[in-house]
Amino acid sequence: MRAAPAPDEIRRRNLAVLLRHVHVGGPLSRTELAERMGLNRSTILALTNDLVAAGLVREELPGQTGKAGRPSLVVRPESERVYVLALDVGADRLAVARVGLGGVVLDRHETPRDSATFDPDEVIAALAVMAQTTIDAAGADTVCVGVGLAFCGMVRERDGVVRYGPNIGWVDVPVGAKLSERLGRPVAVGNNANLGAIAERERGVGAGVADLLYLHGEVGIGGGVIMGGTLLGGEGGYGGEVGHMIVNPGGRACRCGSRGCLEAEAGELALIAAAGRTDLSGRAAVEAIVDAAARGDATARDALHQVGDWLGYGVSNLVNIFNPTMVVFGGVLREIYLASAAQVRSRLAVNGLLAVRERVRLRTSALADDAPLVGAAELAFAELLTDPLQTLTRCSGG
Amino acid sequence: MRAAPAPDEIRRRNLAVLLRHVHVGGPLSRTELAERMGLNRSTILALTNDLVAAGLVREELPGQTGKAGRPSLVVRPESERVYVLALDVGADRLAVARVGLGGVVLDRHETPRDSATFDPDEVIAALAVMAQTTIDAAGADTVCVGVGLAFCGMVRERDGVVRYGPNIGWVDVPVGAKLSERLGRPVAVGNNANLGAIAERERGVGAGVADLLYLHGEVGIGGGVIMGGTLLGGEGGYGGEVGHMIVNPGGRACRCGSRGCLEAEAGELALIAAAGRTDLSGRAAVEAIVDAAARGDATARDALHQVGDWLGYGVSNLVNIFNPTMVVFGGVLREIYLASAAQVRSRLAVNGLLAVRERVRLRTSALADDAPLVGAAELAFAELLTDPLQTLTRCSGG
Repeated sequence: MRAAPAPDEIRRRNLAVLLRHVHVGGPLSRTELAERMGLNRSTILALTNDLVAAGLVREELPGQTGKAGRPSLVVRPESERVYVLALDVGADRLAVARVGLGGVVLDRHETPRDSATFDPDEVIAALAVMAQTTIDAAGADTVCVGVGLAFCGMVRERDGVVRYGPNIGWVDVPVGAKLSERLGRPVAVGNNANLGAIAERERGVGAGVADLLYLHGEVGIGGGVIMGGTLLGGEGGYGGEVGHMIVNPGGRACRCGSRGCLEAEAGELALIAAAGRTDLSGRAAVEAIVDAAARGDATARDALHQVGDWLGYGVSNLVNIFNPTMVVFGGVLREIYLASAAQVRSRLAVNGLLAVRERVRLRTSALADDAPLVGAAELAFAELLTDPLQTLTRCSGG
Repeated sequence: MRAAPAPDEIRRRNLAVLLRHVHVGGPLSRTELAERMGLNRSTILALTNDLVAAGLVREELPGQTGKAGRPSLVVRPESERVYVLALDVGADRLAVARVGLGGVVLDRHETPRDSATFDPDEVIAALAVMAQTTIDAAGADTVCVGVGLAFCGMVRERDGVVRYGPNIGWVDVPVGAKLSERLGRPVAVGNNANLGAIAERERGVGAGVADLLYLHGEVGIGGGVIMGGTLLGGEGGYGGEVGHMIVNPGGRACRCGSRGCLEAEAGELALIAAAGRTDLSGRAAVEAIVDAAARGDATARDALHQVGDWLGYGVSNLVNIFNPTMVVFGGVLREIYLASAAQVRSRLAVNGLLAVRERVRLRTSALADDAPLVGAAELAFAELLTDPLQTLTRCSGG
């Protein structure tokens, strides 16, 4: 018997829920929206009219349905007009994308990073230029409603500080605040694997899966864990750092200072070392090794077996610990897993407890290297999807 | 703008919330209840009167407070009258307790289990006798409002089936249904470490901690993980089986069929083997080894160092993966941790990521061996705390 929310507050919430439905679910008819939201059609009409007037959605005829009779209008997000900027700081690249409401990637640019650009200020300056160029290139009738950044390390989300990025050498860098100052807009920052998990669940292979484990390989291995539909945070929001689970005590040195971490044994650096392909680096090296193994090269094949076996130890441990419905391999782990799935699965058959291994599905990422970028866009949309009209007014400079 | 709940439904919910407040928080004045529930005092008065009439709470003067003036009455649960039966099937004992509303252990019995009683039907028969004897011994004016059972293995909670108990040799035993048939009452079943985690958070060292990891040592090592205040379940509810995380590939054989699992390397069997004390077993063996080490026995000390080092590997991995606020050691892990804390902490200092290890607190269980039993009582109270009056009527045979 707490006080009921005020009508304005109810309207704000319902606008937010309706907009989220078309953002995540795509174009929906008013009848479908009424069913999904448990509201009557006249309320849906009033809410839709408000969102149309604001320029957040439009109503139009659906594509050919094959059904007879006059089709009903669908509510579609204004993807070309309303967008966010998504940034991804990987260990080996910077990427930027404009992502329209509804999750459409409108345009996308990527720059490889080399060791000359590890300095935080240089990286932030480069990001700011990429971001501003992208915003400037968008049409005059567009509006940027948020900026989200995925980072390959441990991030304190509330203030966008990178606490630790072992593969890029950053400690306590306030990347959110610094970039925000340069762009004159708030910048939300998240861990790349956490954002990848959200992206795969919202728009990828894990759609509708409540208990999902996402493993992202770049130079290191990051993890994003969704349990009961909620991202695992932990005390400081650093939960899911599965790459630094030690699978091989006394094993290969890891950049974090330990030995035998999952990322040291099953990441791309381990694969490159085992295959003796230090002439190459990053994704190019992984692809060359996978190709060589497919052609019958014994060294490459043995290297993949070895790395796949450690990956299998890691996956088995995580499956026993979390009892997930699905494990998703993203980034370069997608290629590594595909080429070593037999090792991973045979480890799971030996090490996984029956009740958990019998149901788990192992899958590769649908969004591939872009999962963190798509997740960063979702982070950037969060404010609009909480208070659509107010956020739009603020971002339109109105 | 969904339909508002009916007045009866609101009253039922408010009765449940009020009863939960005094069950968890102890005796509270009507003023405190009004504040905690955000309701006015006349509503609290009406709700309290309903619960008093049902015999679930009573109002009385609080203990001496030292404050001047006339003290206000407090609402206190009827702990002597309204109780649940809590059962614990451990690898080495059966325990039963009557736990009163408010969490008071009223009486408690324990039987050591030996290898002669591993047969499911014999164990269930023994439990039924212990349970019925305890219920019969309670006074005529008492009412048993639920039965909860903690089991040392993987449990499918929805139907109370033990899927796998590696240290007791059970596979797919419907212990909930079988015991329920014998007692003529529903029996709720949960994993002992999950229930231990709930107990420590509700009534132990983890009070108020949102992100807590509970490790329970008996013969094996079980885990219960609470993240953001919610128990980690996973797809089938088997989440938290951290004892079968492999910390030492190729290491000691585990009863699950793998090698080098945390429970095989850091559990009581590993300690007993390393210390050469196979003349004893269970808790008695652990205590003898800890005592010997304290007296300067080098073999016992080395055994504790070795086991503590593996425990440190496990704890570091889990701290990196979950970023918990607190790790609680329960069961015999309490003694093992206390005697090897230096090893555990030095592993954590090396293997733990800075941002997560700097904040985590390592603690021993406040409820010791009884954490699963106390958690089983909470499971048994769940129905009463959802619908107090209806549950009481049903259980009173009314």
